[in-house]
Amino acid sequence: MVEMKSKKFFYKNIIEWKKQRMGILSAENKPGIEIATPPEFKGHEGIWNPEDLFVASVNACIMTTFLAYAERNKLDFESFKSEAEGVLEIADNKFMITEIKIKPFVKVKHDADIERAKELIGLSEKNCLISNSIVSKVTILPEATAGI
Amino acid sequence: MVEMKSKKFFYKNIIEWKKQRMGILSAENKPGIEIATPPEFKGHEGIWNPEDLFVASVNACIMTTFLAYAERNKLDFESFKSEAEGVLEIADNKFMITEIKIKPFVKVKHDADIERAKELIGLSEKNCLISNSIVSKVTILPEATAGI
Repeated sequence: MVEMKSKKFFYKNIIEWKKQRMGILSAENKPGIEIATPPEFKGHEGIWNPEDLFVASVNACIMTTFLAYAERNKLDFESFKSEAEGVLEIADNKFMITEIKIKPFVKVKHDADIERAKELIGLSEKNCLISNSIVSKVTILPEATAGI
Repeated sequence: MVEMKSKKFFYKNIIEWKKQRMGILSAENKPGIEIATPPEFKGHEGIWNPEDLFVASVNACIMTTFLAYAERNKLDFESFKSEAEGVLEIADNKFMITEIKIKPFVKVKHDADIERAKELIGLSEKNCLISNSIVSKVTILPEATAGI
């Protein structure tokens, strides 16, 4: 643990403007992603925007954290899917993502694991490193069922 | 402005687990993106991870905000490219992205616009809605040159 405390990890990317309100996001050895201003701010439809990436980072972090906890706690699950919705509005005279609602849904193999699965999802949000890095209020409503 | 104050915009996405520590990020009418836990946390190489998305959201937001400011201020520019690096480490006993360094580079058409371009980039960071939504320290080092 002492060693972990001093560890740092780095995440690099490049965005390059192409035309109008569009650009390409890239990172070493990763597929390029087209990015644009959203339509409501004079941008483009059907293209990922910065707001999407932000909300997705929280949603994805809860999944990856859950996967780690499920493995550590030997939770048998069949599927995991999570819906996220971020709200952009003016607060304190500036635009910000004030709130993110997350609805994860997990299907476990055994009835007995339903409550434990929901607890692990809750814990995943609480310990998600992206949740720790934002001021937006994150609300999580985990659901779980059993079956194959 | 009164109307703007009451406006809310919503950003939705879904992440679905596929196998190992990988899933697919999706949103209506947008291309799917493969997402995984990063290699340093028992994940996978060459796939976008939640940490990347978070850092990219800030980098992309600065670009889209700059594009709006450049248009509003009639700044003629040839190219815009921005490198970002986020640092993940333990602070206050929890993992978080403590810092994001951004290096935007803009090429303007006229020498006289170099300083104004750098100012507009600085302003873009200051008013970026993602910067407003995070606790990570954002440092921006804009560079500008002139030429075609």
